[in-house]
Amino acid sequence: MLEKRDYVDKIIKKAIKQTEKYKDIGELASYIPELANVNPDSFAFCLVTVDGEVFSYGESEKIFSIQSISKILSLIMALHDNDPISVFDKVGSEPTSYEFNSLVPITDKATNPFINAGAMTTASMVKGANVDEKFERILAYYKKLSSFEDAYLIKDIYESEMETTDRNRAIAYYLKSKDIFSDNPNDVLDLYIRNCSIATNVCALAKTGAVLANKGYKPKTKEKLLSKKEVQIIVSQMATCGMYENSGRYLMEVGIPSKSGVSGGILGVVPGVCGLGVYCPRIDKSGNSVRGIELFKILAKDLGFTIFIN
Amino acid sequence: MLEKRDYVDKIIKKAIKQTEKYKDIGELASYIPELANVNPDSFAFCLVTVDGEVFSYGESEKIFSIQSISKILSLIMALHDNDPISVFDKVGSEPTSYEFNSLVPITDKATNPFINAGAMTTASMVKGANVDEKFERILAYYKKLSSFEDAYLIKDIYESEMETTDRNRAIAYYLKSKDIFSDNPNDVLDLYIRNCSIATNVCALAKTGAVLANKGYKPKTKEKLLSKKEVQIIVSQMATCGMYENSGRYLMEVGIPSKSGVSGGILGVVPGVCGLGVYCPRIDKSGNSVRGIELFKILAKDLGFTIFIN
Amino acid sequence: MLEKRDYVDKIIKKAIKQTEKYKDIGELASYIPELANVNPDSFAFCLVTVDGEVFSYGESEKIFSIQSISKILSLIMALHDNDPISVFDKVGSEPTSYEFNSLVPITDKATNPFINAGAMTTASMVKGANVDEKFERILAYYKKLSSFEDAYLIKDIYESEMETTDRNRAIAYYLKSKDIFSDNPNDVLDLYIRNCSIATNVCALAKTGAVLANKGYKPKTKEKLLSKKEVQIIVSQMATCGMYENSGRYLMEVGIPSKSGVSGGILGVVPGVCGLGVYCPRIDKSGNSVRGIELFKILAKDLGFTIFIN
Amino acid sequence: MLEKRDYVDKIIKKAIKQTEKYKDIGELASYIPELANVNPDSFAFCLVTVDGEVFSYGESEKIFSIQSISKILSLIMALHDNDPISVFDKVGSEPTSYEFNSLVPITDKATNPFINAGAMTTASMVKGANVDEKFERILAYYKKLSSFEDAYLIKDIYESEMETTDRNRAIAYYLKSKDIFSDNPNDVLDLYIRNCSIATNVCALAKTGAVLANKGYKPKTKEKLLSKKEVQIIVSQMATCGMYENSGRYLMEVGIPSKSGVSGGILGVVPGVCGLGVYCPRIDKSGNSVRGIELFKILAKDLGFTIFIN
Repeated sequence: MLEKRDYVDKIIKKAIKQTEKYKDIGELASYIPELANVNPDSFAFCLVTVDGEVFSYGESEKIFSIQSISKILSLIMALHDNDPISVFDKVGSEPTSYEFNSLVPITDKATNPFINAGAMTTASMVKGANVDEKFERILAYYKKLSSFEDAYLIKDIYESEMETTDRNRAIAYYLKSKDIFSDNPNDVLDLYIRNCSIATNVCALAKTGAVLANKGYKPKTKEKLLSKKEVQIIVSQMATCGMYENSGRYLMEVGIPSKSGVSGGILGVVPGVCGLGVYCPRIDKSGNSVRGIELFKILAKDLGFTIFIN
Repeated sequence: MLEKRDYVDKIIKKAIKQTEKYKDIGELASYIPELANVNPDSFAFCLVTVDGEVFSYGESEKIFSIQSISKILSLIMALHDNDPISVFDKVGSEPTSYEFNSLVPITDKATNPFINAGAMTTASMVKGANVDEKFERILAYYKKLSSFEDAYLIKDIYESEMETTDRNRAIAYYLKSKDIFSDNPNDVLDLYIRNCSIATNVCALAKTGAVLANKGYKPKTKEKLLSKKEVQIIVSQMATCGMYENSGRYLMEVGIPSKSGVSGGILGVVPGVCGLGVYCPRIDKSGNSVRGIELFKILAKDLGFTIFIN
Repeated sequence: MLEKRDYVDKIIKKAIKQTEKYKDIGELASYIPELANVNPDSFAFCLVTVDGEVFSYGESEKIFSIQSISKILSLIMALHDNDPISVFDKVGSEPTSYEFNSLVPITDKATNPFINAGAMTTASMVKGANVDEKFERILAYYKKLSSFEDAYLIKDIYESEMETTDRNRAIAYYLKSKDIFSDNPNDVLDLYIRNCSIATNVCALAKTGAVLANKGYKPKTKEKLLSKKEVQIIVSQMATCGMYENSGRYLMEVGIPSKSGVSGGILGVVPGVCGLGVYCPRIDKSGNSVRGIELFKILAKDLGFTIFIN
Repeated sequence: MLEKRDYVDKIIKKAIKQTEKYKDIGELASYIPELANVNPDSFAFCLVTVDGEVFSYGESEKIFSIQSISKILSLIMALHDNDPISVFDKVGSEPTSYEFNSLVPITDKATNPFINAGAMTTASMVKGANVDEKFERILAYYKKLSSFEDAYLIKDIYESEMETTDRNRAIAYYLKSKDIFSDNPNDVLDLYIRNCSIATNVCALAKTGAVLANKGYKPKTKEKLLSKKEVQIIVSQMATCGMYENSGRYLMEVGIPSKSGVSGGILGVVPGVCGLGVYCPRIDKSGNSVRGIELFKILAKDLGFTIFIN
């Protein structure tokens, strides 16, 4: 599909240009000072094909915290360490119209792994002797998945999120009171916040997406990082639940299974074709990068990326 | 992808055999006597490729009422007769965890076009001087889309649904009270029930699916029946909302955008590949054909039909 | 408690004067033209003691439609025609935070008899061969209860409510679909709207209240119109559910079991002491007369009418 | 109303006898071991008139933890330390159909002061340099209000509740995240659990009720402990929200403003007449003493205690 490098490059450049008009729309996430403390005009995009070809634009090396995109990681690790049935015994797989940090869609369990409560649930299923060990496993896995060997915990983000995370602590205790896990809720929350604080850049996101697009195999090295079943679970949940309470509309308008984070990143997967990463920190009310969505929308159309028109 | 006819035929036959163990599981829909009045062991399956090749099995000519699969039709007609923006102004595009005939997920408008309230909303947007004319247009369109020229209104189904449809009449009046439409609610309901009562068979479903899989063009004749944008809207909504409150789990486990009806039919779309139709009247609690789902699950795996692993 | 006529009269006159500042606050109910078609400055008040002494002020003969205050009547008639257990089998007895015409608080049944769904439920339990006969029984009973022999159906109100009552018709069909009653929903709705359209004035309301305040006996004639048990049920439900979603706050601030209607009337009961009726058509967002509430608040304090300080 | 001591005594004894058949119905609260660790057959009742006359029966000296009846105390202290408007700015005044430890009825704020979230809110408004000082003030006030100078913190109850209170800790963090208070949520929870762990007996409850029944004045000494306004607020909230999600039905069937606790105590207020305390540890699903309710129901009828029939 990506026939010629020049052709693709031209399309992408045009699309980036077309989205310039959105660059002042949306607000920086402000619930922790560190997130508001970025250049609102930053922009970066990266596309990595299943053959490992890389197309990158803008500040593609720029580090930002992964935030909710890490919900993919804790789901993967939960699936690695447990069978899918026991994972989905503790967390649902249906979208919700409630916002990501709501407690309402937790009845017996969190509705899906991509709301905060669901990601705490999957975090609680990651094996390890303690929080440090669990996080090390997750981080090590992300380095491999993203080919971003320099991934690390952003200490400032982690610390300031830990200080201002009353709602998330409420969720952790609520899950504990529902017997979703037996660990100390503070430890589960700690791991969850560490996951959110992982340093990434758009190429690391796109390379992660490329593994998911490539049936679980790392482009070029062909290393198998995920089973087909895991790919199926993760990408389908991205399709139905990845963009918070706008997932249905996003899939209708864009058609690329994606997962966003409030720091302004979006990771997209075009099965059989490529992974995508975008970064632009101005977000809409649902927490999704405004310009990022517009860029994916244009690329989906101009490069035929939608999974529904093949 | 469907390399050789014999190979595909063998896979399908094996899959059908494997699902025989599910044939006694589930219950006939019983809310109208006519729906319970069928042979519970009936089974039929049809696959139609984007090239127009047909694979059919079991009672493939057997007539049954289309029920909720008609929600696709009224969405298509609403999109034909209005622009997408004004359609989704009146109906949402997000899944709901509530059952299909619930009134709870109607706040300002129905959450999506594939719950009853949403399908009444799209029905109300179909142009025509009166109910008869509107229905004639929908039926004529279905004949073309499905290549099933003998499609008709099943009078017994229609009449007995009209008699026992208190909940749906409540929904119609509720939508009216929310100013979703200005028509007489009884007329909107009448059209909705007529849509549900259209006679179909599995090959008509599979041929409809093949048009959706083929970017909106009818296989062989290449007649354009739907715009790419309409295909994108319909198939993505099938992916996120097509299987009632189990849509997320179904997409995770099967991975084929589908729409089911309580009569036991399911229509599936594999973009770029084929359309699928299955009929087996025993349904689960959510209203989906038990054996139908199992068959699609096996075919998705064995024929590589999931949209997430390409 | 009402020691001297002059003293009471002076207190009431002062209270009425004190509430003059509220006379421009609030809006006329506008959902049917007839309700908006009144003099917004009308004011009337009446107090009737358990001994039958009458204190009346303002336009005390002025006719207005009883609206939701009729919910008391259909509850009484349902209790007359059935035992309390079977009544509360079909309707709950708990307040709701949802607005009076919401469908949300109907799960198995309406949450209480004083929301629309609850009043339709009690209406459906009134005995009679047809709607005419049922309504005649209710009207006849109201004439006796209120000593207002001239009570009648206000045809204009009835007709225009019947025309614009989509939400209520939705509720009627919804209740039917939940098997709350077996009657035709249109008949139940018809009876419900007729009840709302009964002509009353403040003295009729106050006299009704006086019967409830007097253990069910009509002042002076001592005729027994209600059992103690019925009085207990009705007055306690007025206390917890009588003022729509503000019932808790109203009871806290005023302390008089009351039932309001959107036409601007409020009926109050001070057990052992008196009944109250007020009319002032400007209502707040919940549907309660603004000036009426303020007047009751002052009287409760100055005449010691709150049931919680005795 | 309580004409003759002998007459009243006879009525009460008969009522107690009549409720013996309920003594095996219901279950001990089991969420902390200490609550399940009591004699399920314990029974005690006390009535204290507004003149200070005491009628006591059964194990009237028996100590039990006050549990949710302490929600009255924290509401009183919040009202003492702040004006009512600022209190009800932070907590609602409407009943809820959700259970007492649900997080659902907390939208902007807790729906009422008598669910856990509401009582944490009022606890957070009590003045004091730290948790110790705040609790000392509350305990000192309870000693005065109840004339139970020996009231103390039951350490075993307090400690085991603190260990098993995940849901309540979730609520505390949730309220904090909604900016309901600025204190450390762990401190607010600590104070809340201490309040629940206060030692009481039925006579202490009845004497507290007698103050509320006596316009805020202590019987005999005439010491003013509460303003009329405070009495009005507390007793009306007991009427509408005091018996968890059964408050409406309880008021209808019993008619005495009451507040219950899961340890099996109920405090009742008959304005102008008396206070009541009962203890019987078997509770129903809502958390209310089964035999206690039955006893109040009979006394309300036989001694004319209902506030709605005067």
